[in-house]
Amino acid sequence: MHLHYAPGTVAISVAIALEEAGLAHEATALDFSNGDQRSADYLALNPKGRVPALITDAGVLTETGAILDYIGTRAPELVPADPFHAARMREAMYYLASTLHVAHAHKLRGARWADQPTSIADMQAKVPETMTACCAYLEARYEFAPFTLGQQLTLADPYMFVACGWATGDGVDMAAFPKLSAFLTMMRDRDSVQAVIAKGMLA
Amino acid sequence: MHLHYAPGTVAISVAIALEEAGLAHEATALDFSNGDQRSADYLALNPKGRVPALITDAGVLTETGAILDYIGTRAPELVPADPFHAARMREAMYYLASTLHVAHAHKLRGARWADQPTSIADMQAKVPETMTACCAYLEARYEFAPFTLGQQLTLADPYMFVACGWATGDGVDMAAFPKLSAFLTMMRDRDSVQAVIAKGMLA
Repeated sequence: MHLHYAPGTVAISVAIALEEAGLAHEATALDFSNGDQRSADYLALNPKGRVPALITDAGVLTETGAILDYIGTRAPELVPADPFHAARMREAMYYLASTLHVAHAHKLRGARWADQPTSIADMQAKVPETMTACCAYLEARYEFAPFTLGQQLTLADPYMFVACGWATGDGVDMAAFPKLSAFLTMMRDRDSVQAVIAKGMLA
Repeated sequence: MHLHYAPGTVAISVAIALEEAGLAHEATALDFSNGDQRSADYLALNPKGRVPALITDAGVLTETGAILDYIGTRAPELVPADPFHAARMREAMYYLASTLHVAHAHKLRGARWADQPTSIADMQAKVPETMTACCAYLEARYEFAPFTLGQQLTLADPYMFVACGWATGDGVDMAAFPKLSAFLTMMRDRDSVQAVIAKGMLA
């Protein structure tokens, strides 16, 4: 498998999951500041011009949550055996995809949804509020003891770690969220995360 | 199982999937115009104040894609047996959750991401462009022959049907997307969709 990523992006959650699963893979970095994601070669691979993209023997996969679930078919120990708990894992993943990541994206990617500079600035100003609300929801809803769903590391954890790692930079006072903060610290110490940091994927 | 929904919303994709799966369930409509989703009773059930919420014997589930995948554990015929094809199904579902639904939400829910009336109006004006781009991506990426992924009805289909059903109202000229248009027409004729229409869930 071959992962296309950009440092610090949501794609790093896939890299961490591959490490946790012990699955051999190659990885290629895109330089967003150079517009690599808009190159003809990359758009041929992923017409969305986003990361991650995972090249498998069967074809290209995109969308972080879908790729994580695919990794789960190769590493079933990362998916709760009980269907309800597996659904709670996916509930967390869909929340990150549809709400927290979207809130975060209004800081630097507001041009996706509006054209006027005043609108973009307005969106940016609201990011601390929306990201704080996301963290408050997560703090109340999930165990983080030590993992998102409790004792078992699941596919939700790399995703949660990377996405909530954006919160401080987005203006969230993480001291208000002690469970989530302890989770981020715990995850950072794992071999999988240290491995991706050593590869320059994450600061 | 007990589904909480509002008519015409993404929650209706869950209702259609339950019909396709032949799973007995009850359903309660929330009146968004009356603020039902912000009532104390509903927030106790789903603190996000959104739909869908599915009450199961094991607890409450939220997030459309996660609930659909849970239905898939009860009705495995709705999930491709091949892991890559199952991943493509989930790729479509995550795209709808994180991109198309978000584009659509900027029409009526812009206040989630900005405060100024000029920003909200700017967001609304851009919705036909973003929703058209979403439909163009889907038209190119998926088979719609007759279903999203080809011959097999999967969990992605009810979600695709409901979410792309918003496109015309969002200013998309669907004549430009003949595969997607034929898919919407085909789905509307299914017994599952006719059943939810008969219940007043969908216009």
